[in-house]
Amino acid sequence: MNRAIVEFVSRQRIGHLATADMAGNPSVIPICFVLGKDQTVYTALDSKQKSVKVSNLKRVTNISENSTVSIVFDVYSEDWEELAYVILFGEASLIEDPVEQKQAEALLREKYTQYETFLEHNAPIIRIDVDRSKSWGSI
Amino acid sequence: MNRAIVEFVSRQRIGHLATADMAGNPSVIPICFVLGKDQTVYTALDSKQKSVKVSNLKRVTNISENSTVSIVFDVYSEDWEELAYVILFGEASLIEDPVEQKQAEALLREKYTQYETFLEHNAPIIRIDVDRSKSWGSI
Repeated sequence: MNRAIVEFVSRQRIGHLATADMAGNPSVIPICFVLGKDQTVYTALDSKQKSVKVSNLKRVTNISENSTVSIVFDVYSEDWEELAYVILFGEASLIEDPVEQKQAEALLREKYTQYETFLEHNAPIIRIDVDRSKSWGSI
Repeated sequence: MNRAIVEFVSRQRIGHLATADMAGNPSVIPICFVLGKDQTVYTALDSKQKSVKVSNLKRVTNISENSTVSIVFDVYSEDWEELAYVILFGEASLIEDPVEQKQAEALLREKYTQYETFLEHNAPIIRIDVDRSKSWGSI
């Protein structure tokens, strides 16, 4: 990720995360996220009205079967000259190191005050190691 | 898709389309779209600043290798009680029937006046046959 991409992504409030299961069936979901150091993206498994257990969430079962993911960050405008997006490609995993979990959780809480209500302490967090990025339009 | 889902999706200006290649590597991109009859979604390969030939677009090569796709339509708000999304799962293909292409193109032009500038006549259009839908939040 070059500097322009980091700045564009940092300004966004949501991204859209695509995962795929073992058989290659894709699934996509809006996510809240934060950029970490060293080309990483963090996204928490928060407590926004989940109807299933966290370990049964589609994105979690997909990542356990197939860690390759893609995330897009974009700006829509009715003036199509202003359209822009950044796609990141990488590998996702659940954070296991408690120190990294704490740091990522702190970054997420700093970005989203809503997490006071919607994020449990020590919530599971997905870490995405970005391999490659692509940008388009006026980022 | 039930009526609430059709109404929610119809109100959206963009969706996010996830495709995956033969090896199951997902890719995701924002799309303009329109709902057709019989649980179909149409999205055109338009002329918004494409850097590669249409036939080489990632979504096109992915669909030719693996037709299973997922699209999410969502509304973001800083009030997280208002968050909502609909995910559609289905099979994608390029429209081959010129009559269907014309109808789909007309629907897209009706929804997006920007296509006067950004859509070539007889542009390739992807058709997604929706198998399954999932909604979440206050749609």
